[in-house]
Amino acid sequence: MTTNTEPMAEQLYGAMSTLRSVRRLRTDPIPDAVRDRILQAAAWAPSGGNVQPWRVVVVQNEAQRRVIGDLYRIEWEKYGAGARQGLQHLSGEVLEKQKRTLAAADHLGEHMGDAPLILVFCFNPENMAITDADLGRPSVVGGGSVYPAVQNVMLACRVEGIGCTLTTLLCFQETALRDLLGIPDPWYTCAFLPIGYPALGGHGPISRRAVDKLCYLDGWGQPLKGR
Amino acid sequence: MTTNTEPMAEQLYGAMSTLRSVRRLRTDPIPDAVRDRILQAAAWAPSGGNVQPWRVVVVQNEAQRRVIGDLYRIEWEKYGAGARQGLQHLSGEVLEKQKRTLAAADHLGEHMGDAPLILVFCFNPENMAITDADLGRPSVVGGGSVYPAVQNVMLACRVEGIGCTLTTLLCFQETALRDLLGIPDPWYTCAFLPIGYPALGGHGPISRRAVDKLCYLDGWGQPLKGR
Repeated sequence: MTTNTEPMAEQLYGAMSTLRSVRRLRTDPIPDAVRDRILQAAAWAPSGGNVQPWRVVVVQNEAQRRVIGDLYRIEWEKYGAGARQGLQHLSGEVLEKQKRTLAAADHLGEHMGDAPLILVFCFNPENMAITDADLGRPSVVGGGSVYPAVQNVMLACRVEGIGCTLTTLLCFQETALRDLLGIPDPWYTCAFLPIGYPALGGHGPISRRAVDKLCYLDGWGQPLKGR
Repeated sequence: MTTNTEPMAEQLYGAMSTLRSVRRLRTDPIPDAVRDRILQAAAWAPSGGNVQPWRVVVVQNEAQRRVIGDLYRIEWEKYGAGARQGLQHLSGEVLEKQKRTLAAADHLGEHMGDAPLILVFCFNPENMAITDADLGRPSVVGGGSVYPAVQNVMLACRVEGIGCTLTTLLCFQETALRDLLGIPDPWYTCAFLPIGYPALGGHGPISRRAVDKLCYLDGWGQPLKGR
């Protein structure tokens, strides 16, 4: 693939290709100016009908972060057990890589409340045209008006040198979280991002499938190239 | 808000803040190298458990694009009627702006099949941990493993000078589209992006709510600043 050497392309692709999940965070505060730039990135994201049917509760208060951390620990203990079992089928380099990821996830499971900020994304389904609501299969389209903003936040964290990861596990604790943060009807939770300066290496190389395993041309399974 | 003048931040924020929906597209083909960079941007996106439970069918074949264009026309005619009625409650500058947007959307409604490429995003719900599936309210979390990739595609289009817009209206025609493109069980459609070089001005300034209308601190409705 030839590269695009225009500065905007080069820098964007550089950010995207090194956006890792960073799960070991320092407790140092994030300056308000940095926080505000990250939130501005969310605000720039497109949404259906430009309605922007999402809000972010930025949790900085330590007591609230502790509660969220405790709720996350409960959910991670359940979910992590399954992830640990999954390791039994792996070996060699893949196993070692997964063990490192799991260790980082276990760290977050213990320390989510220590992140200087936790971003809680909420959405209002009444302001969404959910075109796949009645198709008799799981619906995802509502997410099309929220997760572009979440991705903008993660890319903004990358360029600000802030570590972040997206979890949706806390949806299992939605009732408790709505009480804690005063989230009114008909708003619900859909994304949780602990963010902070990286404790270790932070952003860097990522592992993803090759494009030709993910993308087809003119029909399912048909290769992009060599036609 | 102070700015971050590092090149990566400056260029990323420049791309995000000028990513418009571009609905009037030229028919000129998109070079394979450009297409491949845009798809690579999708592949870099994060997803739950790094599973990447999405695929893109890139539709370049003219006969297939015509069918998709016809299906889109049907859905836009229904949806656009509602959008037109909504104008009745507007006046002045807001009305003029909405009329321009609607005219561009009507153009796309007639000409989607003329776009040189249509990206059809598919997802596999069996490869997703949909944590909000059983909460008794609309579920969006599955989208968290797909729309970050869609947003990466749109940002990549921006920096490549390619116009794009995201529509989910064609989910109403999912059965026909799965037949047309040979999409197998248990894969479903969730995002459709006609892309091409802009016929008019292309990307540029965007209208969004202010950050302090979208983001709260330590509780719903609590202002970010001035505490």
